[in-house]
Amino acid sequence: MTQERELAELTRLVREFSTERDWQQFHDPKSVILALVGEVGELAELFQWVPADQAVSRFSSPDRHARVAEEMADVLVYLVCLADVLGVDLGEAARAKLADSHRRFAADAVRGVAPHKP
Amino acid sequence: MTQERELAELTRLVREFSTERDWQQFHDPKSVILALVGEVGELAELFQWVPADQAVSRFSSPDRHARVAEEMADVLVYLVCLADVLGVDLGEAARAKLADSHRRFAADAVRGVAPHKP
Amino acid sequence: MTQERELAELTRLVREFSTERDWQQFHDPKSVILALVGEVGELAELFQWVPADQAVSRFSSPDRHARVAEEMADVLVYLVCLADVLGVDLGEAARAKLADSHRRFAADAVRGVAPHKP
Amino acid sequence: MTQERELAELTRLVREFSTERDWQQFHDPKSVILALVGEVGELAELFQWVPADQAVSRFSSPDRHARVAEEMADVLVYLVCLADVLGVDLGEAARAKLADSHRRFAADAVRGVAPHKP
Repeated sequence: MTQERELAELTRLVREFSTERDWQQFHDPKSVILALVGEVGELAELFQWVPADQAVSRFSSPDRHARVAEEMADVLVYLVCLADVLGVDLGEAARAKLADSHRRFAADAVRGVAPHKP
Repeated sequence: MTQERELAELTRLVREFSTERDWQQFHDPKSVILALVGEVGELAELFQWVPADQAVSRFSSPDRHARVAEEMADVLVYLVCLADVLGVDLGEAARAKLADSHRRFAADAVRGVAPHKP
Repeated sequence: MTQERELAELTRLVREFSTERDWQQFHDPKSVILALVGEVGELAELFQWVPADQAVSRFSSPDRHARVAEEMADVLVYLVCLADVLGVDLGEAARAKLADSHRRFAADAVRGVAPHKP
Repeated sequence: MTQERELAELTRLVREFSTERDWQQFHDPKSVILALVGEVGELAELFQWVPADQAVSRFSSPDRHARVAEEMADVLVYLVCLADVLGVDLGEAARAKLADSHRRFAADAVRGVAPHKP
Protein backbone atom coordinates (compact mmCIF):
# COMPACT_ATOMS: atom_id res chain seq x y z
CA MET A 1 0.00 0.00 0.00
CA THR A 2 1.36 3.40 -0.94
CA GLN A 3 1.23 6.14 1.61
CA GLU A 4 -0.31 9.43 0.55
CA ARG A 5 2.41 12.08 0.22
CA GLU A 6 2.13 14.92 2.70
CA LEU A 7 1.44 17.72 0.21
CA ALA A 8 -1.12 15.55 -1.58
CA GLU A 9 -2.79 14.97 1.78
CA LEU A 10 -2.86 18.73 2.48
CA THR A 11 -4.23 19.36 -1.00
CA ARG A 12 -7.00 16.86 -0.34
CA LEU A 13 -7.82 18.44 3.04
CA VAL A 14 -7.87 21.98 1.59
CA ARG A 15 -10.05 20.87 -1.29
CA GLU A 16 -12.49 19.05 1.00
CA PHE A 17 -12.70 22.12 3.22
CA SER A 18 -13.51 24.38 0.27
CA THR A 19 -15.91 21.96 -1.35
CA GLU A 20 -17.95 21.43 1.80
CA ARG A 21 -18.42 25.22 2.02
CA ASP A 22 -18.92 25.76 -1.72
CA TRP A 23 -15.99 28.17 -1.62
CA GLN A 24 -14.12 26.95 -4.71
CA GLN A 25 -16.12 29.56 -6.65
CA PHE A 26 -13.99 32.26 -4.95
CA HIS A 27 -10.69 30.54 -5.64
CA ASP A 28 -9.62 31.94 -8.98
CA PRO A 29 -5.82 32.38 -9.01
CA LYS A 30 -5.75 36.17 -8.58
CA SER A 31 -8.02 35.99 -5.56
CA VAL A 32 -6.02 33.21 -3.93
CA ILE A 33 -2.79 35.13 -4.52
CA LEU A 34 -4.33 38.17 -2.79
CA ALA A 35 -5.25 35.91 0.13
CA LEU A 36 -1.69 34.57 0.17
CA VAL A 37 -0.41 38.16 0.22
CA GLY A 38 -2.68 38.88 3.16
CA GLU A 39 -1.23 35.99 5.13
CA VAL A 40 2.37 36.88 4.23
CA GLY A 41 1.53 40.37 5.49
CA GLU A 42 0.38 38.99 8.83
CA LEU A 43 3.59 36.97 9.07
CA ALA A 44 5.68 40.07 8.28
CA GLU A 45 3.87 42.10 10.93
CA LEU A 46 4.89 39.65 13.63
CA PHE A 47 8.55 40.36 12.94
CA GLN A 48 8.59 43.97 11.78
CA TRP A 49 9.93 45.72 14.88
CA VAL A 50 11.87 42.79 16.37
CA PRO A 51 15.66 43.29 16.16
CA ALA A 52 17.06 40.90 13.53
CA ASP A 53 19.28 39.06 15.99
CA GLN A 54 16.41 38.45 18.44
CA ALA A 55 13.89 37.20 15.92
CA VAL A 56 14.41 33.49 16.61
CA SER A 57 14.51 33.76 20.40
CA ARG A 58 11.52 36.12 20.48
CA PHE A 59 9.37 33.41 18.94
CA SER A 60 10.57 30.52 21.08
CA SER A 61 7.98 30.89 23.86
CA PRO A 62 5.08 28.44 23.39
CA ASP A 63 2.43 31.06 22.66
CA ARG A 64 4.49 33.09 20.22
CA HIS A 65 5.75 29.93 18.58
CA ALA A 66 2.16 28.81 18.11
CA ARG A 67 1.26 32.22 16.71
CA VAL A 68 3.98 32.24 14.07
CA ALA A 69 3.27 28.59 13.21
CA GLU A 70 -0.34 29.53 12.60
CA GLU A 71 0.53 32.39 10.25
CA MET A 72 2.94 30.15 8.35
CA ALA A 73 0.23 27.49 8.13
CA ASP A 74 -2.09 30.07 6.55
CA VAL A 75 0.54 30.86 3.93
CA LEU A 76 1.01 27.16 3.16
CA VAL A 77 -2.73 26.51 2.97
CA TYR A 78 -3.25 29.23 0.35
CA LEU A 79 -0.18 28.11 -1.56
CA VAL A 80 -1.56 24.56 -1.63
CA CYS A 81 -4.96 25.92 -2.67
CA LEU A 82 -3.40 27.88 -5.54
CA ALA A 83 -1.38 24.86 -6.64
CA ASP A 84 -4.56 22.78 -6.72
CA VAL A 85 -6.42 25.38 -8.78
CA LEU A 86 -3.54 25.61 -11.27
CA GLY A 87 -2.77 21.88 -11.34
CA VAL A 88 0.76 22.39 -10.01
CA ASP A 89 2.52 19.60 -8.10
CA LEU A 90 4.16 21.74 -5.42
CA GLY A 91 6.46 19.09 -3.99
CA GLU A 92 7.70 18.06 -7.41
CA ALA A 93 8.19 21.72 -8.38
CA ALA A 94 10.18 22.41 -5.21
CA ARG A 95 12.42 19.39 -5.68
CA ALA A 96 13.03 20.35 -9.33
CA LYS A 97 13.80 23.93 -8.32
CA LEU A 98 16.29 22.82 -5.67
CA ALA A 99 18.00 20.50 -8.16
CA ASP A 100 18.22 23.42 -10.57
CA SER A 101 19.63 25.71 -7.87
CA HIS A 102 22.32 23.13 -7.12
CA ARG A 103 23.44 23.47 -10.73
CA ARG A 104 23.13 27.27 -10.92
CA PHE A 105 24.93 28.00 -7.66
CA ALA A 106 28.03 25.81 -7.53
CA ALA A 107 28.89 25.47 -3.85
CA ASP A 108 32.58 26.20 -4.33
CA ALA A 109 31.87 29.38 -6.26
CA VAL A 110 29.34 30.99 -3.94
CA ARG A 111 30.31 29.73 -0.49
CA GLY A 112 29.57 32.37 2.14
CA VAL A 113 28.53 34.96 -0.43
CA ALA A 114 24.90 36.04 -0.57
CA PRO A 115 23.55 36.00 -4.11
CA HIS A 116 22.59 39.61 -4.67
CA LYS A 117 20.38 41.43 -7.05
CA PRO A 118 22.13 43.83 -9.43
CA MET B 1 10.64 1.21 7.64
CA THR B 2 9.14 4.63 8.02
CA GLN B 3 9.09 6.87 5.00
CA GLU B 4 10.35 10.41 5.39
CA ARG B 5 7.44 12.82 5.21
CA GLU B 6 7.48 15.12 2.19
CA LEU B 7 7.90 18.42 4.05
CA ALA B 8 10.62 16.90 6.23
CA GLU B 9 12.37 15.80 3.04
CA LEU B 10 12.11 19.31 1.56
CA THR B 11 13.39 20.77 4.83
CA ARG B 12 16.39 18.43 4.68
CA LEU B 13 17.08 19.36 1.04
CA VAL B 14 16.82 23.10 1.72
CA ARG B 15 19.06 22.82 4.76
CA GLU B 16 21.67 20.80 2.84
CA PHE B 17 21.62 23.34 0.05
CA SER B 18 22.19 26.24 2.45
CA THR B 19 24.79 24.43 4.53
CA GLU B 20 26.90 23.45 1.53
CA ARG B 21 27.02 27.13 0.52
CA ASP B 22 27.43 28.48 4.06
CA TRP B 23 24.31 30.55 3.48
CA GLN B 24 22.53 29.82 6.79
CA GLN B 25 24.26 32.95 8.12
CA PHE B 26 21.92 35.04 5.92
CA HIS B 27 18.78 33.20 6.98
CA ASP B 28 17.56 35.17 9.97
CA PRO B 29 13.75 35.27 9.94
CA LYS B 30 13.35 38.86 8.73
CA SER B 31 15.66 38.26 5.78
CA VAL B 32 13.92 35.03 4.80
CA ILE B 33 10.53 36.74 5.00
CA LEU B 34 11.80 39.48 2.66
CA ALA B 35 12.97 36.75 0.27
CA LEU B 36 9.54 35.12 0.55
CA VAL B 37 7.93 38.49 -0.24
CA GLY B 38 10.16 38.78 -3.28
CA GLU B 39 8.98 35.42 -4.60
CA VAL B 40 5.33 36.17 -3.88
CA GLY B 41 5.86 39.37 -5.84
CA GLU B 42 7.16 37.43 -8.84
CA LEU B 43 4.14 35.14 -8.63
CA ALA B 44 1.78 38.13 -8.47
CA GLU B 45 3.42 39.72 -11.52
CA LEU B 46 2.64 36.66 -13.62
CA PHE B 47 -1.07 37.18 -13.06
CA GLN B 48 -1.44 40.93 -12.68
CA TRP B 49 -2.90 41.85 -16.06
CA VAL B 50 -4.56 38.53 -16.88
CA PRO B 51 -8.40 38.72 -16.73
CA ALA B 52 -9.59 36.82 -13.66
CA ASP B 53 -11.62 34.32 -15.66
CA GLN B 54 -8.70 33.46 -17.96
CA ALA B 55 -6.08 33.00 -15.27
CA VAL B 56 -6.26 29.19 -15.17
CA SER B 57 -6.35 28.65 -18.93
CA ARG B 58 -3.59 31.20 -19.53
CA PHE B 59 -1.22 29.09 -17.49
CA SER B 60 -2.14 25.73 -18.96
CA SER B 61 0.43 25.72 -21.78
CA PRO B 62 3.54 23.70 -20.83
CA ASP B 63 5.95 26.64 -20.69
CA ARG B 64 3.67 28.96 -18.70
CA HIS B 65 2.69 26.08 -16.43
CA ALA B 66 6.37 25.42 -15.78
CA ARG B 67 6.95 29.10 -15.12
CA VAL B 68 4.22 29.44 -12.52
CA ALA B 69 5.24 26.14 -10.91
CA GLU B 70 8.75 27.50 -10.55
CA GLU B 71 7.60 30.70 -8.84
CA MET B 72 5.40 28.69 -6.49
CA ALA B 73 8.33 26.39 -5.75
CA ASP B 74 10.39 29.44 -4.77
CA VAL B 75 7.68 30.53 -2.34
CA LEU B 76 7.52 27.05 -0.80
CA VAL B 77 11.31 26.77 -0.52
CA TYR B 78 11.57 30.02 1.46
CA LEU B 79 8.58 29.05 3.59
CA VAL B 80 10.27 25.73 4.39
CA CYS B 81 13.52 27.57 5.09
CA LEU B 82 11.77 29.94 7.51
CA ALA B 83 10.02 27.05 9.24
CA ASP B 84 13.37 25.32 9.70
CA VAL B 85 14.97 28.45 11.17
CA LEU B 86 12.06 28.93 13.59
CA GLY B 87 11.61 25.25 14.43
CA VAL B 88 8.08 25.15 13.06
CA ASP B 89 6.58 21.87 11.79
CA LEU B 90 4.78 23.26 8.73
CA GLY B 91 2.74 20.17 7.91
CA GLU B 92 1.56 19.78 11.48
CA ALA B 93 0.73 23.49 11.68
CA ALA B 94 -1.27 23.34 8.44
CA ARG B 95 -3.25 20.28 9.56
CA ALA B 96 -3.97 21.93 12.93
CA LYS B 97 -5.05 25.13 11.21
CA LEU B 98 -7.40 23.29 8.87
CA ALA B 99 -8.93 21.38 11.79
CA ASP B 100 -9.43 24.71 13.55
CA SER B 101 -11.00 26.26 10.45
CA HIS B 102 -13.44 23.34 10.27
CA ARG B 103 -14.63 24.32 13.75
CA ARG B 104 -14.68 28.09 13.14
CA PHE B 105 -16.50 27.95 9.84
CA ALA B 106 -19.39 25.52 10.18
CA ALA B 107 -20.17 24.34 6.65
CA ASP B 108 -23.93 24.82 7.01
CA ALA B 109 -23.51 28.40 8.23
CA VAL B 110 -21.11 29.69 5.61
CA ARG B 111 -21.95 27.66 2.50
CA GLY B 112 -21.41 29.75 -0.63
CA VAL B 113 -20.63 32.92 1.32
CA ALA B 114 -17.13 34.32 1.21
CA PRO B 115 -15.83 35.16 4.66
CA HIS B 116 -15.18 38.87 4.45
CA LYS B 117 -13.18 41.36 6.39
CA PRO B 118 -15.21 44.04 8.19
CA MET C 1 7.04 82.23 -0.36
CA THR C 2 7.38 78.72 -1.60
CA GLN C 3 4.78 76.20 -0.60
CA GLU C 4 5.95 72.95 0.94
CA ARG C 5 5.43 70.13 -1.52
CA GLU C 6 2.89 67.53 -0.43
CA LEU C 7 5.27 64.57 -0.10
CA ALA C 8 7.78 66.75 1.76
CA GLU C 9 4.97 67.73 4.12
CA LEU C 10 4.05 64.07 4.68
CA THR C 11 7.70 63.23 5.24
CA ARG C 12 7.91 65.97 7.87
CA LEU C 13 4.73 64.73 9.58
CA VAL C 14 5.89 61.10 9.60
CA ARG C 15 9.29 62.11 10.95
CA GLU C 16 7.77 64.27 13.69
CA PHE C 17 5.47 61.42 14.68
CA SER C 18 8.37 58.97 14.96
CA THR C 19 10.69 61.40 16.70
CA GLU C 20 8.16 62.34 19.38
CA ARG C 21 7.81 58.63 20.19
CA ASP C 22 11.51 57.78 19.85
CA TRP C 23 10.54 55.21 17.25
CA GLN C 24 13.16 56.04 14.61
CA GLN C 25 15.34 53.40 16.30
CA PHE C 26 13.01 50.72 14.88
CA HIS C 27 13.00 52.16 11.36
CA ASP C 28 15.87 50.40 9.66
CA PRO C 29 14.96 49.71 6.02
CA LYS C 30 14.27 45.97 6.38
CA SER C 31 11.89 46.57 9.28
CA VAL C 32 10.04 49.34 7.48
CA ILE C 33 9.68 47.15 4.38
CA LEU C 34 8.18 44.39 6.54
CA ALA C 35 5.73 46.96 7.94
CA LEU C 36 4.92 48.05 4.39
CA VAL C 37 4.32 44.40 3.46
CA GLY C 38 1.97 44.09 6.43
CA GLU C 39 -0.09 47.04 5.23
CA VAL C 40 -0.16 45.82 1.63
CA GLY C 41 -1.40 42.52 3.04
CA GLU C 42 -4.28 44.27 4.82
CA LEU C 43 -5.14 46.07 1.60
CA ALA C 44 -5.10 42.77 -0.34
CA GLU C 45 -7.37 41.12 2.22
CA LEU C 46 -10.05 43.73 1.65
CA PHE C 47 -10.32 42.70 -1.99
CA GLN C 48 -9.45 39.01 -1.99
CA TRP C 49 -12.91 37.46 -2.40
CA VAL C 50 -14.60 40.36 -4.17
CA PRO C 51 -15.36 39.59 -7.87
CA ALA C 52 -12.99 41.64 -10.03
CA ASP C 53 -15.79 43.53 -11.76
CA GLN C 54 -17.43 44.54 -8.47
CA ALA C 55 -14.29 45.75 -6.72
CA VAL C 56 -14.83 49.45 -7.39
CA SER C 57 -18.55 49.51 -6.55
CA ARG C 58 -18.04 47.37 -3.44
CA PHE C 59 -15.86 50.06 -1.96
CA SER C 60 -18.03 53.03 -2.86
CA SER C 61 -20.12 53.09 0.33
CA PRO C 62 -18.79 55.68 2.81
CA ASP C 63 -17.60 53.19 5.43
CA ARG C 64 -15.89 50.81 3.03
CA HIS C 65 -14.40 53.74 1.13
CA ALA C 66 -12.99 55.07 4.41
CA ARG C 67 -11.64 51.62 5.25
CA VAL C 68 -9.76 51.18 1.99
CA ALA C 69 -8.49 54.77 2.15
CA GLU C 70 -7.09 54.03 5.59
CA GLU C 71 -5.22 50.93 4.44
CA MET C 72 -3.82 52.84 1.47
CA ALA C 73 -2.77 55.64 3.80
CA ASP C 74 -0.85 53.10 5.90
CA VAL C 75 1.00 51.90 2.80
CA LEU C 76 1.88 55.47 1.84
CA VAL C 77 3.02 56.38 5.35
CA TYR C 78 5.49 53.48 5.48
CA LEU C 79 6.66 54.21 1.95
CA VAL C 80 7.31 57.83 2.95
CA CYS C 81 9.05 56.62 6.12
CA LEU C 82 11.32 54.31 4.09
CA ALA C 83 12.11 57.08 1.62
CA ASP C 84 13.08 59.35 4.49
CA VAL C 85 15.37 56.71 6.03
CA LEU C 86 17.06 56.08 2.67
CA GLY C 87 17.19 59.73 1.59
CA VAL C 88 15.00 59.09 -1.47
CA ASP C 89 12.92 61.92 -2.97
CA LEU C 90 9.78 59.91 -3.72
CA GLY C 91 8.02 62.52 -5.84
CA GLU C 92 11.10 63.14 -7.95
CA ALA C 93 11.67 59.40 -8.34
CA ALA C 94 8.08 58.84 -9.45
CA ARG C 95 8.19 61.65 -12.00
CA ALA C 96 11.50 60.33 -13.36
CA LYS C 97 10.09 56.81 -13.57
CA LEU C 98 7.00 57.97 -15.43
CA ALA C 99 9.14 59.94 -17.88
CA ASP C 100 11.22 56.82 -18.42
CA SER C 101 8.12 54.68 -18.94
CA HIS C 102 6.90 57.12 -21.57
CA ARG C 103 10.11 56.39 -23.51
CA ARG C 104 10.10 52.63 -22.93
CA PHE C 105 6.47 52.07 -23.83
CA ALA C 106 5.73 54.05 -26.98
CA ALA C 107 1.99 54.66 -26.96
CA ASP C 108 1.49 53.63 -30.59
CA ALA C 109 3.32 50.34 -30.08
CA VAL C 110 1.59 49.13 -26.94
CA ARG C 111 -1.92 50.61 -27.19
CA GLY C 112 -4.45 48.27 -25.59
CA VAL C 113 -1.90 45.51 -24.97
CA ALA C 114 -0.96 44.70 -21.40
CA PRO C 115 2.80 44.50 -20.97
CA HIS C 116 3.30 40.92 -19.86
CA LYS C 117 6.00 39.00 -18.15
CA PRO C 118 7.66 36.29 -20.24
CA MET D 1 -3.15 80.93 -8.78
CA THR D 2 -3.36 77.68 -6.88
CA GLN D 3 -0.54 75.26 -7.33
CA GLU D 4 -1.43 71.67 -8.15
CA ARG D 5 -0.69 69.45 -5.16
CA GLU D 6 2.07 66.92 -5.71
CA LEU D 7 -0.04 63.78 -5.39
CA ALA D 8 -2.72 65.29 -7.63
CA GLU D 9 0.01 65.99 -10.18
CA LEU D 10 1.25 62.38 -9.98
CA THR D 11 -2.31 61.13 -10.31
CA ARG D 12 -2.74 63.22 -13.44
CA LEU D 13 0.54 61.94 -14.90
CA VAL D 14 -0.29 58.30 -14.16
CA ARG D 15 -3.75 58.70 -15.64
CA GLU D 16 -2.42 60.37 -18.80
CA PHE D 17 0.14 57.59 -19.18
CA SER D 18 -2.52 54.88 -18.92
CA THR D 19 -5.05 56.69 -21.10
CA GLU D 20 -2.59 57.26 -23.94
CA ARG D 21 -1.91 53.50 -23.98
CA ASP D 22 -5.52 52.43 -23.42
CA TRP D 23 -4.36 50.55 -20.35
CA GLN D 24 -7.06 51.69 -17.90
CA GLN D 25 -8.99 48.57 -18.99
CA PHE D 26 -6.43 46.46 -17.06
CA HIS D 27 -6.56 48.59 -13.94
CA ASP D 28 -9.29 46.98 -11.87
CA PRO D 29 -8.34 47.15 -8.18
CA LYS D 30 -7.31 43.50 -7.76
CA SER D 31 -4.98 43.69 -10.76
CA VAL D 32 -3.39 46.93 -9.58
CA ILE D 33 -2.87 45.48 -6.09
CA LEU D 34 -1.11 42.47 -7.65
CA ALA D 35 1.12 44.89 -9.58
CA LEU D 36 1.80 46.77 -6.34
CA VAL D 37 2.71 43.46 -4.68
CA GLY D 38 5.11 42.75 -7.54
CA GLU D 39 6.89 46.06 -6.99
CA VAL D 40 7.02 45.63 -3.22
CA GLY D 41 8.58 42.24 -3.92
CA GLU D 42 11.29 43.81 -6.05
CA LEU D 43 11.98 46.32 -3.29
CA ALA D 44 12.20 43.52 -0.71
CA GLU D 45 14.62 41.56 -2.88
CA LEU D 46 17.07 44.47 -2.90
CA PHE D 47 17.39 44.26 0.89
CA GLN D 48 16.85 40.58 1.65
CA TRP D 49 20.43 39.47 2.35
CA VAL D 50 21.84 42.81 3.46
CA PRO D 51 22.62 42.90 7.22
CA ALA D 52 20.06 45.15 8.94
CA ASP D 53 22.67 47.59 10.21
CA GLN D 54 24.23 48.03 6.76
CA ALA D 55 21.03 48.56 4.84
CA VAL D 56 21.24 52.34 4.70
CA SER D 57 24.93 52.56 3.84
CA ARG D 58 24.65 49.78 1.26
CA PHE D 59 22.25 51.91 -0.74
CA SER D 60 24.14 55.18 -0.51
CA SER D 61 26.24 54.75 -3.66
CA PRO D 62 24.72 56.63 -6.62
CA ASP D 63 23.79 53.55 -8.65
CA ARG D 64 22.25 51.59 -5.78
CA HIS D 65 20.50 54.70 -4.53
CA ALA D 66 19.02 55.19 -8.00
CA ARG D 67 17.98 51.54 -8.07
CA VAL D 68 16.11 51.62 -4.78
CA ALA D 69 14.54 54.98 -5.69
CA GLU D 70 13.24 53.42 -8.88
CA GLU D 71 11.64 50.47 -7.09
CA MET D 72 10.05 52.82 -4.57
CA ALA D 73 8.78 54.97 -7.43
CA ASP D 74 7.11 51.89 -8.93
CA VAL D 75 5.35 51.21 -5.63
CA LEU D 76 4.14 54.81 -5.42
CA VAL D 77 2.97 54.84 -9.03
CA TYR D 78 0.76 51.78 -8.53
CA LEU D 79 -0.51 53.13 -5.23
CA VAL D 80 -1.46 56.39 -6.96
CA CYS D 81 -3.07 54.39 -9.78
CA LEU D 82 -5.14 52.37 -7.30
CA ALA D 83 -6.19 55.52 -5.45
CA ASP D 84 -7.34 57.04 -8.72
CA VAL D 85 -9.35 53.94 -9.65
CA LEU D 86 -11.02 53.87 -6.23
CA GLY D 87 -11.48 57.64 -5.92
CA VAL D 88 -9.29 57.85 -2.84
CA ASP D 89 -7.46 61.10 -1.98
CA LEU D 90 -4.18 59.58 -0.85
CA GLY D 91 -2.67 62.72 0.68
CA GLU D 92 -5.82 63.50 2.62
CA ALA D 93 -6.05 59.88 3.80
CA ALA D 94 -2.43 59.90 4.96
CA ARG D 95 -2.83 63.16 6.88
CA ALA D 96 -6.03 61.87 8.50
CA LYS D 97 -4.30 58.61 9.43
CA LEU D 98 -1.35 60.40 10.99
CA ALA D 99 -3.68 62.65 12.99
CA ASP D 100 -5.48 59.53 14.18
CA SER D 101 -2.22 57.82 15.11
CA HIS D 102 -1.26 60.87 17.18
CA ARG D 103 -4.39 60.26 19.24
CA ARG D 104 -4.06 56.47 19.45
CA PHE D 105 -0.39 56.43 20.42
CA ALA D 106 0.13 59.09 23.08
CA ALA D 107 3.80 60.00 22.91
CA ASP D 108 4.34 59.79 26.67
CA ALA D 109 2.82 56.32 26.86
CA VAL D 110 4.69 54.64 24.02
CA ARG D 111 8.03 56.46 23.92
CA GLY D 112 10.80 54.07 22.85
CA VAL D 113 8.49 51.05 22.85
CA ALA D 114 7.66 49.41 19.53
CA PRO D 115 3.94 48.79 19.16
CA HIS D 116 3.74 45.04 18.83
CA LYS D 117 1.22 42.60 17.56
CA PRO D 118 -0.23 40.21 20.15
